[in-house]
Amino acid sequence: MTVSPSPLTERLTQSRRHPLLVFAGQSNRPLAQAICDNLGVPLGHSKTEKFTNDNLIVHYEQSLREGDIFIVQSFSTPVSDAIMELMLMIDAAKSASAGRVTAVIPYYSYSRSDKKDSPRISIAGRLVADLLEAAGADRVLTMTLHAPQVHGFFKVPVDHLSADVVLSQHFKGCVPDAHNGVVLAPDAGSIKRASQIARRLDSGLAMIDKERISDTEVRPRALIGDVDGKTVFIVDDEISTAGSLVETVNLARSMGAKDVYVAVTHGVYTGPAIERIAALDVTQVASTNTVYVSPEKIAASNGKLAVLDVAPLFASAIANIHTGESVSTLFE
Amino acid sequence: MTVSPSPLTERLTQSRRHPLLVFAGQSNRPLAQAICDNLGVPLGHSKTEKFTNDNLIVHYEQSLREGDIFIVQSFSTPVSDAIMELMLMIDAAKSASAGRVTAVIPYYSYSRSDKKDSPRISIAGRLVADLLEAAGADRVLTMTLHAPQVHGFFKVPVDHLSADVVLSQHFKGCVPDAHNGVVLAPDAGSIKRASQIARRLDSGLAMIDKERISDTEVRPRALIGDVDGKTVFIVDDEISTAGSLVETVNLARSMGAKDVYVAVTHGVYTGPAIERIAALDVTQVASTNTVYVSPEKIAASNGKLAVLDVAPLFASAIANIHTGESVSTLFE
Amino acid sequence: MTVSPSPLTERLTQSRRHPLLVFAGQSNRPLAQAICDNLGVPLGHSKTEKFTNDNLIVHYEQSLREGDIFIVQSFSTPVSDAIMELMLMIDAAKSASAGRVTAVIPYYSYSRSDKKDSPRISIAGRLVADLLEAAGADRVLTMTLHAPQVHGFFKVPVDHLSADVVLSQHFKGCVPDAHNGVVLAPDAGSIKRASQIARRLDSGLAMIDKERISDTEVRPRALIGDVDGKTVFIVDDEISTAGSLVETVNLARSMGAKDVYVAVTHGVYTGPAIERIAALDVTQVASTNTVYVSPEKIAASNGKLAVLDVAPLFASAIANIHTGESVSTLFE
Amino acid sequence: MTVSPSPLTERLTQSRRHPLLVFAGQSNRPLAQAICDNLGVPLGHSKTEKFTNDNLIVHYEQSLREGDIFIVQSFSTPVSDAIMELMLMIDAAKSASAGRVTAVIPYYSYSRSDKKDSPRISIAGRLVADLLEAAGADRVLTMTLHAPQVHGFFKVPVDHLSADVVLSQHFKGCVPDAHNGVVLAPDAGSIKRASQIARRLDSGLAMIDKERISDTEVRPRALIGDVDGKTVFIVDDEISTAGSLVETVNLARSMGAKDVYVAVTHGVYTGPAIERIAALDVTQVASTNTVYVSPEKIAASNGKLAVLDVAPLFASAIANIHTGESVSTLFE
Amino acid sequence: MTVSPSPLTERLTQSRRHPLLVFAGQSNRPLAQAICDNLGVPLGHSKTEKFTNDNLIVHYEQSLREGDIFIVQSFSTPVSDAIMELMLMIDAAKSASAGRVTAVIPYYSYSRSDKKDSPRISIAGRLVADLLEAAGADRVLTMTLHAPQVHGFFKVPVDHLSADVVLSQHFKGCVPDAHNGVVLAPDAGSIKRASQIARRLDSGLAMIDKERISDTEVRPRALIGDVDGKTVFIVDDEISTAGSLVETVNLARSMGAKDVYVAVTHGVYTGPAIERIAALDVTQVASTNTVYVSPEKIAASNGKLAVLDVAPLFASAIANIHTGESVSTLFE
Amino acid sequence: MTVSPSPLTERLTQSRRHPLLVFAGQSNRPLAQAICDNLGVPLGHSKTEKFTNDNLIVHYEQSLREGDIFIVQSFSTPVSDAIMELMLMIDAAKSASAGRVTAVIPYYSYSRSDKKDSPRISIAGRLVADLLEAAGADRVLTMTLHAPQVHGFFKVPVDHLSADVVLSQHFKGCVPDAHNGVVLAPDAGSIKRASQIARRLDSGLAMIDKERISDTEVRPRALIGDVDGKTVFIVDDEISTAGSLVETVNLARSMGAKDVYVAVTHGVYTGPAIERIAALDVTQVASTNTVYVSPEKIAASNGKLAVLDVAPLFASAIANIHTGESVSTLFE
Repeated sequence: MTVSPSPLTERLTQSRRHPLLVFAGQSNRPLAQAICDNLGVPLGHSKTEKFTNDNLIVHYEQSLREGDIFIVQSFSTPVSDAIMELMLMIDAAKSASAGRVTAVIPYYSYSRSDKKDSPRISIAGRLVADLLEAAGADRVLTMTLHAPQVHGFFKVPVDHLSADVVLSQHFKGCVPDAHNGVVLAPDAGSIKRASQIARRLDSGLAMIDKERISDTEVRPRALIGDVDGKTVFIVDDEISTAGSLVETVNLARSMGAKDVYVAVTHGVYTGPAIERIAALDVTQVASTNTVYVSPEKIAASNGKLAVLDVAPLFASAIANIHTGESVSTLFE
Repeated sequence: MTVSPSPLTERLTQSRRHPLLVFAGQSNRPLAQAICDNLGVPLGHSKTEKFTNDNLIVHYEQSLREGDIFIVQSFSTPVSDAIMELMLMIDAAKSASAGRVTAVIPYYSYSRSDKKDSPRISIAGRLVADLLEAAGADRVLTMTLHAPQVHGFFKVPVDHLSADVVLSQHFKGCVPDAHNGVVLAPDAGSIKRASQIARRLDSGLAMIDKERISDTEVRPRALIGDVDGKTVFIVDDEISTAGSLVETVNLARSMGAKDVYVAVTHGVYTGPAIERIAALDVTQVASTNTVYVSPEKIAASNGKLAVLDVAPLFASAIANIHTGESVSTLFE
Repeated sequence: MTVSPSPLTERLTQSRRHPLLVFAGQSNRPLAQAICDNLGVPLGHSKTEKFTNDNLIVHYEQSLREGDIFIVQSFSTPVSDAIMELMLMIDAAKSASAGRVTAVIPYYSYSRSDKKDSPRISIAGRLVADLLEAAGADRVLTMTLHAPQVHGFFKVPVDHLSADVVLSQHFKGCVPDAHNGVVLAPDAGSIKRASQIARRLDSGLAMIDKERISDTEVRPRALIGDVDGKTVFIVDDEISTAGSLVETVNLARSMGAKDVYVAVTHGVYTGPAIERIAALDVTQVASTNTVYVSPEKIAASNGKLAVLDVAPLFASAIANIHTGESVSTLFE
Repeated sequence: MTVSPSPLTERLTQSRRHPLLVFAGQSNRPLAQAICDNLGVPLGHSKTEKFTNDNLIVHYEQSLREGDIFIVQSFSTPVSDAIMELMLMIDAAKSASAGRVTAVIPYYSYSRSDKKDSPRISIAGRLVADLLEAAGADRVLTMTLHAPQVHGFFKVPVDHLSADVVLSQHFKGCVPDAHNGVVLAPDAGSIKRASQIARRLDSGLAMIDKERISDTEVRPRALIGDVDGKTVFIVDDEISTAGSLVETVNLARSMGAKDVYVAVTHGVYTGPAIERIAALDVTQVASTNTVYVSPEKIAASNGKLAVLDVAPLFASAIANIHTGESVSTLFE
Repeated sequence: MTVSPSPLTERLTQSRRHPLLVFAGQSNRPLAQAICDNLGVPLGHSKTEKFTNDNLIVHYEQSLREGDIFIVQSFSTPVSDAIMELMLMIDAAKSASAGRVTAVIPYYSYSRSDKKDSPRISIAGRLVADLLEAAGADRVLTMTLHAPQVHGFFKVPVDHLSADVVLSQHFKGCVPDAHNGVVLAPDAGSIKRASQIARRLDSGLAMIDKERISDTEVRPRALIGDVDGKTVFIVDDEISTAGSLVETVNLARSMGAKDVYVAVTHGVYTGPAIERIAALDVTQVASTNTVYVSPEKIAASNGKLAVLDVAPLFASAIANIHTGESVSTLFE
Repeated sequence: MTVSPSPLTERLTQSRRHPLLVFAGQSNRPLAQAICDNLGVPLGHSKTEKFTNDNLIVHYEQSLREGDIFIVQSFSTPVSDAIMELMLMIDAAKSASAGRVTAVIPYYSYSRSDKKDSPRISIAGRLVADLLEAAGADRVLTMTLHAPQVHGFFKVPVDHLSADVVLSQHFKGCVPDAHNGVVLAPDAGSIKRASQIARRLDSGLAMIDKERISDTEVRPRALIGDVDGKTVFIVDDEISTAGSLVETVNLARSMGAKDVYVAVTHGVYTGPAIERIAALDVTQVASTNTVYVSPEKIAASNGKLAVLDVAPLFASAIANIHTGESVSTLFE
């Protein structure tokens, strides 16, 4: 899955579609730059400003006519601005006669709003999918949706990348006898993901049964399975305030867990997250760079935070989309 | 949740919309008739035939102008005919100037095709949702979708009924000390449903970890949790050939389960299902009447099969949709 | 109109779009294979199965990215399965990033449901057209729609092939002095088709006036024109149970017809069709291979059945669509 | 089918929807007024002007909020203006918050452009249907489409009135022993209509076989059936220049026809039509008032022209649409 | 234009649609409450929260089934959150079976992005209109769009209120001999608005000619007309940082203006606005309450700020939309 | 901005898309021919006729498969026919498998219907944009829309050409010291255009304040600015009957204007326009050839009319659209 830049660059020039142009919103420009570096193309020139009335304005500073446009934007804080900026960029690209526009959304935050937990709410994961299509997106490239069904919220073609290989290789690198450990799913929603990692590690599996108290609160009910005396691998799709993570780790510890390793795709780390992780009884908390993690946060984490690079994976997917090759083969 | 027919009938006549008309396709007319009986309205007159070239033709034998139309059709064998018939009925109703058309789909079989398990397949649960809307459906009323996210595949309003209350009350009726038992989820996909039933029974929870071998095959990897010496309640969304059920029961037995009770929403019972259940080491297998179960099947089940009636639930939902009252309150 | 494979294959490699990929549903794989043989390309690898709950699942076993996809599927018994399978194949192709998807429907059975013969029915020919577009079809290639107006039911471009040349050349081959004969239209709906064949044969024309008794029944009222002592050529778009054909032949005989030849585009041959044709007082009944006719049927027809090959015509049309050349010139 | 105004007016006031408002474009205001008179409602106030750059502007002079709007407009010369005016009226009504807009198009001229007679033309009957829907039409009410399949060009509900009863009653009134006559279809496209009239008259049937020379020219090939010594009833959907009618009458005469009566739904009468009819060897040419026929034309027709009133039929249909009663029952 | 609450409340209960429900987003709840007070209905119960990953969640705490829903939300800072919240509220309302949803947007900030000032930007005023429709808005009620053409960006019906009467009455109240003054348009875009106010005051008119330097910068070129020794009324659609206003006032002063009065519809007042206004050589700066102006801002304005109440106007419009009466008559 | 045909022709052959095909409706074939001459391609073969019932029929006489189609049609008298013909041409092109269809509308007359001047009218500029998209237009190329916001009425990409450079160069050619003159805007709507021309001439600016009396009438209220003793340049988007122009010129003269020059983009010249211009006290009235001006009109104008050629501008834009190069650079 490592990408050697030079043959990739060669392939791109042989593509029927051209030019390949990669632009970025404001949410995660370092990742966009890393993807471009892997592809061997420069990051496209665009400018986003705010008018004095807080309206966003996006301006492309180069021609996009007939181009194969990829716009990289993660839905990280401030999320509403990130979504509006992406939609403005898509619309501006389409009306500037772009040949095809792919929304590259490494972290699609609203995938967590994927069902009706209570009456009279929006299934916002579907709504945002519809809005992106109304704005003109022709395709979507994303990673680790909260539930795999969210893929079906989109009518346009979606390439849905998985960080499973990256996360499980990371665990294997940290813990040579990972097969003696137990993968712990923090709730029922992550059991499938945990089960897939467990198969890659050839390890055991356990889960925490939780119940929802309100729209925004849940609490643990029981730990199903056995973690006593074992290395525990906690996997999830995202960490935000790390409140749920603290609970999961504490519960695992209270049930006799030996070492605890954590790895998630999306390290959102909001509010007290870094402080909590710094104080947490875990060996390491790893996440990928789908969401930008500042050096300050890493420095403040008491050596706990690790960031895994998924730019090569996104670069390969973009190259294959551009040249019309299979994306699924990237995972075989 | 019990429905007393007479006040219901009164409420219907006070509705702003009228008339309320309930029609049925060929897939489950007994359920449609039972719903009408609960509502106190006659089942509407329509006729479905096949031309000699196997084309379906649907004909309404009464005026539908401005009416509030509900069409009851389960997606049971032959499924393709059931879907085509429903779409023809929706289209014919709309072009006959129906005021509003609600597709009542007690069993939405394609909700199992809800994600990309492998590349280059259709997320058919989304496709069929789009087709129903293209045919003209204004709303959908359904029960126990395979995953709650499937709700988000529809753009039109959906009322998604749950059989959880019916199933858990049934268990409580069968096993007075159900709280000492364990609810067993046959796979990761049903863990949330199992967890909700466990909370209603105040019982324990366990699950089987499975892995997918191919598009159509999966196999058990481990049983997570403890069933030894306990009454086990297996819950799932559907049973078709009962092959997976046999595996689950055997695994539970091999892990020391005492009595085993099974309850699912959709009793599809195809192929060798009845034979297998008749021979299975369980006390009872219950399902609701979302799919029609013939008296012959019940007779052949060796006393194992029970059918739970959800017609009152559908009747209440239809009444509330018709009169503009909350459907979610039916579950409080 | 004969297609010499080698120059065709050459042309295909010079096309701007590529690759050209032809897949087939289950309804008429021999025709699809024959089309591929004419084109000099292999039939694409795809797999269709049924889950135990009777849901269809379609899986492409090769990459379709950017490809020019043609999916061959006739709407023959079981028709609902054929339509659902085609829609699943279209949807799976689109979400697998196919460049363009053409639904090749040699026999579009629902073209017979083309008007409101009675109130409160569906004009299913339009409905199915809308469903195919909702599923993602970019174009349609078909043959001999029941009425030419059905072409207008589609919003996407349609190439509507005619079997008239094939049928009239067949008659001329059988009856050297065909110009002394009479083409007989079995009902008002086929008079235009009959008139065009008559012009190609330079022969006379006659028709039977029928009246509709119910949704599914019609009866002859009179034979308009003169068939006495003449060779009669009966042409129609399709034969299913052959009930109507028997009537037409008997009426022609009773009016003095000498020899009777029959040729239709779509030989559906359901129910008692073969038995009736075997016993019928005609010289020959010919149809094309838009619908698959088994060797068993031909053997049972008492030497009456002939099958005319339209694979070269479909292959030429696909080649021209693929390379951007005129399809209408194929008929000049 | 006669409509007694008073009970109709009563029914309208009992409708759930209100108010019922009927407006008219410029093409056939006398018919719109007659429909209003039958309904017992005033014709709505609207104004259509042309700016100096030939742009049309439409202005409603009364509130339409929540109203049930019917806009009467025939597609008669100048047809493009008639269509543009109707679309402007629909759009203005929708944006003025009309509750529902029904386009009442007594003569839908583009229904003749219903198939691809030659390559690279538009099936304009479908295009105009799509344009009306894009403009915002919720329903369509029309009469005698050129082919019944044109009904399927519309996605919105269509009520398709027939003038068959009016025309056949007219013939019976003129010729007491009509059952001894022959209904003559001037071409294959009108044979079904002719056959239905023949059944109503209990008379014989004949047709003229024509062939198309170019996009705009056709010529007769033969008269199928027997008209010798008989009263001939020629029926068609429309007469424009009467060129084809002259040919048909002359051919009928040359084959021995006794008296000739003509009746069509749409009397378009353009160019030399009136002059030709005045000189034609027929007893009478009747048409309905779907297209406005001026007193001058009637005066110049040498006593040949008769105009049959379909305003009561349209009024009944509008009343039933408004009140939600069956329209098909009007024809039983 | 004053609204007496009691007859309004009476009218609402006689409406065919019901219930009338008014909800509000977070941007301007005081205005929403004032509108409800004018209508005599309580403000609806809804709750908006942010998940820890900055995703918004909206929850209605009462049934909306069949209701006539009005959601009040101004696009004020933070604008992206305001838009996302409104779209979530619309989507949640529709999927909760609301009968009709009207987006009440007193200040539609993106109406300023109404054209392509430079290549490769988005006409965001149109994009946001499309997004609101994609989210499910059935109608829009708004005030003083930057250009009247922005009305045409919406396909759904729009009621576009004007503050002209409120602003000109305010000027007349402040300056009895307003007809001797001059209305000054700060740029070409506001000349039409200024001209309409001038006509209401029967006063003179002048304008400043500006030129655009970049996407976000413009500078004055000349003052066209005569303001020497006169009372000057500056009118515009909005004030944000007041930078442009300072320039306009200074230019007017330098050309000899006597007193200067300012009135705009939308008082956005961002950044240094209040400080600048406090120091500005004007008698008064008035704006309506379409955007919430805090008591702190008013206190800090050195007595310059005045807020004019448009809640009665919105209440009347909502009442008329609800009951199906003309909204345009409110301005006659 | 001048286009040298030979390198252009070279560039076209290197384009990825091909062939480039330019067709024309009936409204302005000389302009279409001039554009083709500039491009070095022949004007495509198509035929438009009217059936005897006044229906239009369009027929392409060459294959369009996969082609990059440009259809040139100005909305000049008869406007409704021009629009209908364009929509038929677009639809026929799409259904004939054109690769992309660009509607080239040099004069988009309905751009003047861009707002709700009075209640219950259509914003026809938006409606026609939607109709063109419903007919299948993929892009639009136009010149000088009445207001720049009209661009936003289209969802498809629009290239909006400006005649400003052509008009201002023309003024400079006529009047060497144009910078001493004054550009006069005939009403508030044209003030922005006038201001841009004034900047190009480095001249003064003035405007006439008008008020609307009715849907079709306006009258001058005052001239803002100073024209005394100066050369006056009147610029506007179009002249139709020249009634408003006469008023403007007379007002300028009465305020002391020296010479008066007029230049507009669209010279519609309807009704008494030429007669009025011939008698008008101006030096010259210039317009471009977006609308065809006959030699007879020029001859009758008393030497006042001049026609400026914009065919090179349209040719350059078409070439750049075809080859995927920036169109905005044409104006730098």
